Amino acid sequence: MDAAEFRRRGKEMVDYVADYLENIEKRQVYPDVEPGYLRSLIPEEAPEEAESYEDVVKDIERVIMPGVTHWHSPYFYAYFPTANSFPSLLADMLCGAIGCIGFSWAASPACTELETVMLDWLGKMLKLPADFLAGTEGRGGGVIQGTASEATLIALLAARSKIIKLIQADHPDRSETDIISKLVAYSSDQFCATLGTTPSCAFDCITELGPICNAVEIWMHIDAAYAGSAFICPEFRPLLNGIEFADSFNFNPHKWLLVNFDCSAMWVKKRSDIIGAFKIEPLYLKHDHQESGNHSHWQIPLGRRFRSLKMWFVFRMYGLKGLQAYIRKHVGLAKEFESLVRADQRFEISADVVLGLVCFRLKGSNELNETLLKRINNARNIHLVPCQLAGKFVLRFAVCARTTESRHIQEAWCHISHLASELLQELPH
Amino acid sequence: MDAAEFRRRGKEMVDYVADYLENIEKRQVYPDVEPGYLRSLIPEEAPEEAESYEDVVKDIERVIMPGVTHWHSPYFYAYFPTANSFPSLLADMLCGAIGCIGFSWAASPACTELETVMLDWLGKMLKLPADFLAGTEGRGGGVIQGTASEATLIALLAARSKIIKLIQADHPDRSETDIISKLVAYSSDQFCATLGTTPSCAFDCITELGPICNAVEIWMHIDAAYAGSAFICPEFRPLLNGIEFADSFNFNPHKWLLVNFDCSAMWVKKRSDIIGAFKIEPLYLKHDHQESGNHSHWQIPLGRRFRSLKMWFVFRMYGLKGLQAYIRKHVGLAKEFESLVRADQRFEISADVVLGLVCFRLKGSNELNETLLKRINNARNIHLVPCQLAGKFVLRFAVCARTTESRHIQEAWCHISHLASELLQELPH
Repeated sequence: MDAAEFRRRGKEMVDYVADYLENIEKRQVYPDVEPGYLRSLIPEEAPEEAESYEDVVKDIERVIMPGVTHWHSPYFYAYFPTANSFPSLLADMLCGAIGCIGFSWAASPACTELETVMLDWLGKMLKLPADFLAGTEGRGGGVIQGTASEATLIALLAARSKIIKLIQADHPDRSETDIISKLVAYSSDQFCATLGTTPSCAFDCITELGPICNAVEIWMHIDAAYAGSAFICPEFRPLLNGIEFADSFNFNPHKWLLVNFDCSAMWVKKRSDIIGAFKIEPLYLKHDHQESGNHSHWQIPLGRRFRSLKMWFVFRMYGLKGLQAYIRKHVGLAKEFESLVRADQRFEISADVVLGLVCFRLKGSNELNETLLKRINNARNIHLVPCQLAGKFVLRFAVCARTTESRHIQEAWCHISHLASELLQELPH
Repeated sequence: MDAAEFRRRGKEMVDYVADYLENIEKRQVYPDVEPGYLRSLIPEEAPEEAESYEDVVKDIERVIMPGVTHWHSPYFYAYFPTANSFPSLLADMLCGAIGCIGFSWAASPACTELETVMLDWLGKMLKLPADFLAGTEGRGGGVIQGTASEATLIALLAARSKIIKLIQADHPDRSETDIISKLVAYSSDQFCATLGTTPSCAFDCITELGPICNAVEIWMHIDAAYAGSAFICPEFRPLLNGIEFADSFNFNPHKWLLVNFDCSAMWVKKRSDIIGAFKIEPLYLKHDHQESGNHSHWQIPLGRRFRSLKMWFVFRMYGLKGLQAYIRKHVGLAKEFESLVRADQRFEISADVVLGLVCFRLKGSNELNETLLKRINNARNIHLVPCQLAGKFVLRFAVCARTTESRHIQEAWCHISHLASELLQELPH
């Protein structure tokens, strides 16, 4: 395929993508396929000879789409949202074309520099303490990680590296192995300090945890993977109070801030703590501007894509006000669903509805609720997943898609309520 | 931006991408900017109000391009290649639109299943032992990691988890901490067993290492990040002999197999070894088809993109023969450069030229070669990076871009040779 054919096929693909996203609610949100469905639909080996683009593209609807769970359908209420917006898709096209690997400043200066500035922009949107910003002379700063799991692992490794250096400064004879065997990490059953847990969007009290960690030199990492996006709204920013005690913080714009996966934003108060844990410098990566930000020292992978482009496109094309309106709309839809649940005496709300997640259940046994969920998901009209809260089986209703409107919430509740009625009628009285 | 505007802007972006890649050799391969150039070109904060797409797009040439190192220019010979092809760009557009997060089979069956089958396709292209394939009943299989660093880390963690279980089976009283403190990992100064090192594309003798590892139950991980792509050609496949002794193996199709970053292919002989090291199963991720492949148990991140789409597009649109021809062309270009160097008595070749990398230097001091490299890179006509081999400062010439032709190789050599002449004339006789 040459550039001329790409021009034609690329434009066809743009239309396919627009059609897909414009009409996504007409597709069944959760697929009907059984495990192993795909292997029988395609050859066992790669072709020897090149195939035509027509052959490939017609297999999208034949092979792929029947097995897709449509995360961007307004009937998708499972897990947490993953972002998808048109400006982000455009930026990703550009990112793919430039195709640079930004492991050092020299490997592509724009890639490293735009990322540093975008993390400052985002940090200011969240009103993070100035300690966390890079600015032109700051000691802190942000970096894009792939996922919150990676950010947490990085924080753990940085904390370990820092404390080993501190101990060895006083006791140069103590070996790293010996020190490591005595280190302790504290966590809840959701790990590290969490703002907005996955099961129920619960919040740890970091204003209580923080001073204790600071007093005894424990590295405090705060993960707000889902909830973090909401902190750009003044009314939700108090949920982040206590951030000043943290050493590192991350949340995922790729969840709820319209920046396509993957984009997990992570900040640290002292860049040197992280860089100290990861720095490697073979000759082939050395260059004249060594100190100008090598983000590969901030992460597990060496290679990295030009992911800040999609933040730049999204922040500019929505503006802060547009992003705030988006968050508020989703929270409003969750509140709307909550009030529908509360108005039905057969149901109970299982956790405070703070942002876009509603945890609810039928008053009754876990088995009853498991059956209800199974019927909801088997019907395929909407898609939910459960969680467990204090031993109870609970249904999670997360407002996910960019295209979800009030009518979808009403429709979803009608459907759940109807299935609940059917189920309850079958029970012996 | 709605779908209608995306149709228009997306098509403009397709043309921009095609223009960029078609005319990339007209751009200066390495930028002129100084560290910090970008911050002064854009505002200090995100805008409150949305901006227009025109405002954003005109900043690509004003803000971004002046700071880009053009990895896909035929004048780029630094590091190793990173892949970029039109079929891969098209697949990535589709991947972004579907935007599913494939952390379990249920989260998007097509995402998990296509990945398993594509890794089988690729494994067969490399003629990997059947142990490494998933098939319908195999115990092995492949997975896409982001980078070779992640694959190596996964292999280490899997090896550790496996040996702890083995030891605890015999000695149930020994704690994990105690066992870990006594574990040993062997590596060379390039780490793990490597086929095609970064400095010089050197090969460890895995037919010697393998039987020793197997005899004493050491997990053998083989990393062929760059070289692995070449093993699809029968004439280079012998470089992979000994793979039968390995427990895990990875290489990066995103380097040299025309699949855009990121796509590091990793195989294991026993899936259960890896899954055992990472398995977590909160209720919100449980589903009816638990055993149907949860790739999040194979990696550090929980989330994952639909990356196998780009393998599928590339393998089909090039065909095995097209991919082999691509590898052979690059190796041929490296051989062409090698013979130009060998014909010049002032230069020496510093390492066997096996694939697409030529390590060479002026006969003379390290300082002389450092000066030559500095002049080459300062001239900005081509871009190279150095390496250190047995104490010697060596220039690396890696054939990287999809569009590199013989004329570029000839031109690059003329330029290097000319700068060398200038430099040598300045020396006192």
